[in-house]
Amino acid sequence: MIKKIIFSTLLFTSCFVAADTESEIQKLKDTSQNSLLAYEIVASLTREVGPRIAGSEGDKKAVAWAEAKLQSLGFDKVYKQPVRVRNWSRGLADASILAPFEHQLVVTALGGSVATPDKGIVAEVVMVDSLEDLKTRSVEEIKDKIVFINKRMERDRAGRGYGPVVIGRSRGAIEAAMLEAQAVIIRSVGTAQSRFAHTGAMQYNPEVEKIPAGALSNADADTLEYMFSKQQPVKMHLNVQAKEHGWQTSYNVIGEITGSAKPEEIVLIAAHLDSWDEGTGALDDGAGVGIVTAAASLIKSTLGAAERTIRVVLYANEEFGLVGAKEYAKANAEELGQIIVAAESDFGAGKIYQLDTRFASDALPFVKELHKHLAPLGIAEGTNTATGGPDISMLPAKGVPVVSLRQDGTHYFDYHHTPNDTLDKIAPDDIQQNQTAYAVFTWLMANSAVDPRPAPALIK
Amino acid sequence: MIKKIIFSTLLFTSCFVAADTESEIQKLKDTSQNSLLAYEIVASLTREVGPRIAGSEGDKKAVAWAEAKLQSLGFDKVYKQPVRVRNWSRGLADASILAPFEHQLVVTALGGSVATPDKGIVAEVVMVDSLEDLKTRSVEEIKDKIVFINKRMERDRAGRGYGPVVIGRSRGAIEAAMLEAQAVIIRSVGTAQSRFAHTGAMQYNPEVEKIPAGALSNADADTLEYMFSKQQPVKMHLNVQAKEHGWQTSYNVIGEITGSAKPEEIVLIAAHLDSWDEGTGALDDGAGVGIVTAAASLIKSTLGAAERTIRVVLYANEEFGLVGAKEYAKANAEELGQIIVAAESDFGAGKIYQLDTRFASDALPFVKELHKHLAPLGIAEGTNTATGGPDISMLPAKGVPVVSLRQDGTHYFDYHHTPNDTLDKIAPDDIQQNQTAYAVFTWLMANSAVDPRPAPALIK
Repeated sequence: MIKKIIFSTLLFTSCFVAADTESEIQKLKDTSQNSLLAYEIVASLTREVGPRIAGSEGDKKAVAWAEAKLQSLGFDKVYKQPVRVRNWSRGLADASILAPFEHQLVVTALGGSVATPDKGIVAEVVMVDSLEDLKTRSVEEIKDKIVFINKRMERDRAGRGYGPVVIGRSRGAIEAAMLEAQAVIIRSVGTAQSRFAHTGAMQYNPEVEKIPAGALSNADADTLEYMFSKQQPVKMHLNVQAKEHGWQTSYNVIGEITGSAKPEEIVLIAAHLDSWDEGTGALDDGAGVGIVTAAASLIKSTLGAAERTIRVVLYANEEFGLVGAKEYAKANAEELGQIIVAAESDFGAGKIYQLDTRFASDALPFVKELHKHLAPLGIAEGTNTATGGPDISMLPAKGVPVVSLRQDGTHYFDYHHTPNDTLDKIAPDDIQQNQTAYAVFTWLMANSAVDPRPAPALIK
Repeated sequence: MIKKIIFSTLLFTSCFVAADTESEIQKLKDTSQNSLLAYEIVASLTREVGPRIAGSEGDKKAVAWAEAKLQSLGFDKVYKQPVRVRNWSRGLADASILAPFEHQLVVTALGGSVATPDKGIVAEVVMVDSLEDLKTRSVEEIKDKIVFINKRMERDRAGRGYGPVVIGRSRGAIEAAMLEAQAVIIRSVGTAQSRFAHTGAMQYNPEVEKIPAGALSNADADTLEYMFSKQQPVKMHLNVQAKEHGWQTSYNVIGEITGSAKPEEIVLIAAHLDSWDEGTGALDDGAGVGIVTAAASLIKSTLGAAERTIRVVLYANEEFGLVGAKEYAKANAEELGQIIVAAESDFGAGKIYQLDTRFASDALPFVKELHKHLAPLGIAEGTNTATGGPDISMLPAKGVPVVSLRQDGTHYFDYHHTPNDTLDKIAPDDIQQNQTAYAVFTWLMANSAVDPRPAPALIK
């Protein structure tokens, strides 16, 4: 019985993939496993452009860099799609404990924060364990204070520690302001015990006063926590000089390798081009830019065009709320049905350990075919509940199938959104494995008859 | 024959240690292995005082803290010895690459550096592999340039990677100025791939012009190195606003547990109280302060006074050239002969793995006795070529025996002299093992008749 199932699966998958595919795949793998193209692309982006927060000079340089890079790598079509973005700058951030013991702290503004008055504010600090804890507090407790949300992020390969903690970053200023706090600071959403503070986007509610928001490094959050053990009022000086500079035009940069047989059918692989301003955005998301760009380019240079079009999308302004991705989905609304599959690389450069999909059930046997070719890279078969990646997360609801090539994120949040997100955090072997996996996956999807549309609704 | 030697050694060592010592040692060990005193002392110093560069306000606070701490821990005598120190402040340091690609760099001034002009300097950069390489260059090559010494430090348990690289930090400005360079920057003397620059003392030669000196983080040194691969001139802007603030008085802070039988015989255990200004000096040398202070205090509280005097010396201004230690040796010159043994803890808080001594040959059998009690802590027997630690390194030449309880320094230089030298880098278990080893060693030396004087000359 078991034998029979395996046999029929093999027969079935052979319907999708032509006989000469095996040797093509091998050739593609061999080429990729001898190429450091993805790494070299990240090196070029991080060192020749550097930081590239949406709407900044660095962002404009990154767009020009991306166009030139895609052209030089032999993409058939390179074009860009305008995206309106807010430009925000961090400015100085300074925090110190004044009592019970004076202590200088390492702090950074959260992305989108308003400023304090020029000379900062001085206030007593109230420490809460979490956003949930904050919500239980009264105006009497919080009014005129600085709220310190002291929740630690847990390390996890899949990054599952992020969600429960990042809510305090996103919504801390709203909840604290509702209780009439002067400002909010959080323990960094990050897993390293280090002196780097982790930035990241935060939100305001138009109905609620905007108060300044910052993050302390984990080491400094420990120090602040210690002060509370002294059973004396903890007083802090906080100065945040962040600024809004109004609207700018940025761009999604797109490169295509036109399909030889069915150019209207699209295999979309993506990453985001913007980064935070303090590091050089090597892991977030230079790595993704390198991986998907190299994968497509290696396909072209090794095997030529596939039957379907391979589209590389480098999204604008992921960091301030998927702005480029939302614009893409809106501007390309009528064309989304032509996307056979989409996948985004936006979780650093750790090795891929699992293949998740979100395919219509008829196409599930093809997942075996994908897995067969990815397994030698150490990639296990996962589930059919993939959500893709942040910039393509809105596509499955529109029926677009997605794939998640899950990366080992054990150390991703040690560096995420800090000045320490630099090229040296990427192991060439690891990013090469990603490049090869994306190349193989993309080729198999673009050069076969499989049609995983429409993506099933996510069963929770 | 072998049996006979072992037997006689055992007989011989039993001459040193009284019969009831075994139970005392066990009691001391048990107490220490249930105490986090060393860790708590470092927490207090790093969080209630913080950074404490020689002559600064932080240094003054540290001296007051140390006096109060030694008193509160029950030392019989607490006193301080004045030491004249230069006070230097780091000020702003800023560096950026202007060509071939603009790039902001993470830089810090080396300790003692002079400033650039107010707006900094702009110059072409010449990269050299090492100080030795620099010495082979000509004035034509170097004149008016910024010299970049790009030598990497190797990771090693015993820290043997430090010496060959730190020479570039100490003497780079002298050698570069002799070739008429405008400034010198070095790849940080540190083992972490991170965005922290490592400071540390540098030297000038009164005969040679003083030029500014800085260090780049390893990640930024990589970036600068990359720029040279473009075969175009590399131009840099460098601004260092370090300042000298003249002479101040600091203090060696000393605590004693007076010997019950031979108070004039001294067992000296030491650390240094000053630290660099950017971190909180947890590993360098808060850990040492915690270890030796806790060891002596635990002896007093557990077993009472030993026969000999136990003297804890917390030296002033180690970082700018062992200034407190030299003053101690000078001011106490006539008394140095009374020191039975000296040991310093100044290599972080990694577990001790080896016992090295520098004892007169008659006392070598006692090393077996020391080792017998330290072995259960995972400490191996080493050599008789110990040099002690930086602040006591001048003592063996005056006949003072020293001991080195060698710590695992595998990760010490990841944090050394950076803003990231904070309490979270100390594992409570590790510092506890150090505390216990120092307590046992100190008790055995202070409560026995062993006399390892005079220290033999070092055989190289």
